[in-house]
Amino acid sequence: MGRGEAVSGRLYGLGVGPGDPELLTLKALGILKRVPVVAYPALEEGDSFARAIVAAHLPAGIREIAVRVPMSPDPDAALGAYDRAAAEIAAELEAGHDVAVLCQGDPFLYGSFMYLHERLAERFQVEVVPGVTSLTAAASAAGRPLVARNETLAVVPATLAEDALVERLSGSDALAIVKLGRHLEKVRRVLARIGRSEEAIYVERATLPEQKLASLGKAPASAPYFSMILVPGRGRR
Amino acid sequence: MGRGEAVSGRLYGLGVGPGDPELLTLKALGILKRVPVVAYPALEEGDSFARAIVAAHLPAGIREIAVRVPMSPDPDAALGAYDRAAAEIAAELEAGHDVAVLCQGDPFLYGSFMYLHERLAERFQVEVVPGVTSLTAAASAAGRPLVARNETLAVVPATLAEDALVERLSGSDALAIVKLGRHLEKVRRVLARIGRSEEAIYVERATLPEQKLASLGKAPASAPYFSMILVPGRGRR
Repeated sequence: MGRGEAVSGRLYGLGVGPGDPELLTLKALGILKRVPVVAYPALEEGDSFARAIVAAHLPAGIREIAVRVPMSPDPDAALGAYDRAAAEIAAELEAGHDVAVLCQGDPFLYGSFMYLHERLAERFQVEVVPGVTSLTAAASAAGRPLVARNETLAVVPATLAEDALVERLSGSDALAIVKLGRHLEKVRRVLARIGRSEEAIYVERATLPEQKLASLGKAPASAPYFSMILVPGRGRR
Repeated sequence: MGRGEAVSGRLYGLGVGPGDPELLTLKALGILKRVPVVAYPALEEGDSFARAIVAAHLPAGIREIAVRVPMSPDPDAALGAYDRAAAEIAAELEAGHDVAVLCQGDPFLYGSFMYLHERLAERFQVEVVPGVTSLTAAASAAGRPLVARNETLAVVPATLAEDALVERLSGSDALAIVKLGRHLEKVRRVLARIGRSEEAIYVERATLPEQKLASLGKAPASAPYFSMILVPGRGRR
């Protein structure tokens, strides 16, 4: 099944933004209203955050493919789940149906869409619709310009080892430490080592009703996965 | 005029996305439709890119404040323009009128909104609405995941000196070099020095009809300001 055959459907990677349903783009909304099939990542049992963001806009009768990825220490278990989802999506595309994969934030900035993209992009037409990222949503929520003028920004996942974090974060004007979760204590040590603790802002679930903002000193003892630390630039010329 | 006095208007920093009018958010559109005044950066003589993005949605009769910033080597000339614009906006806010400042991309990621924010945020209620950034829009246009899994991302303006660019870009998995303009040749040298030339993608005016995409080797000899170089991560686990 080659690119451009009129018979195949198109795969959309649809950025749906950081959480506030109002941060959906007009483009994503238009695609949602016309595709016959949506797919989305979901917990093994339970809800999908990406689906919840657009729930009010899902047309009645749209077919849904929940990509249930097990939270397993075995990486092959997750890859198997993406293999099965890609096959299910491919069957829809081969039948001529467009499929929109809902992606929290932006599909290509730490998005799990890449696992479907790498399985399907060679065989089908793909269009990626960028979305508002949690990165700039968190800066907006904090009311602090993240990066300006000639400043540099380092975006780093908290999952890295402590020394690797110190190395990657040192010397950058603005910092964003994402995927915080159970790594908050390590990140506290890292920011103390590089002398940026005082400027650090903790942001949890930006743009949602349960959003939390705090200076690092007043951040909760444990952080959920959907939280980050921002250290805004200092407005250097 | 203090925060929270009902008589004052609210200042919105409104991210309007990278260029495609369809990448406006529902939230930004709703605000545009109800504010009596918009402000936007504009060339000294001529058009405003931010205004052009939302032109189809501007209600008839909305008042417009063009913030005309001179392209002068004298930084005080630009700051004077922001002082005058802030005074004009403050007069509207004091009269109880909400004002939306249109910001290409996201207001707090290299946005000139910061100049108005720093002049007005102490005196008035401010709400910043994040927008789709040209960063992820460019990755979407290129069809390449920018950063994934445990990868790091460095966002660096091309305006830095060559050695500073080498230092800031070395060791990061994914790179975004923004504000390219007349710095393209320097950036070519930097990417050669750090061994990332082969993976680099040139993206000009992402999401607009005149969008251009090329490998770095086939990039044009001179680049406009609204262009960038992306080096996607390699999908490291």
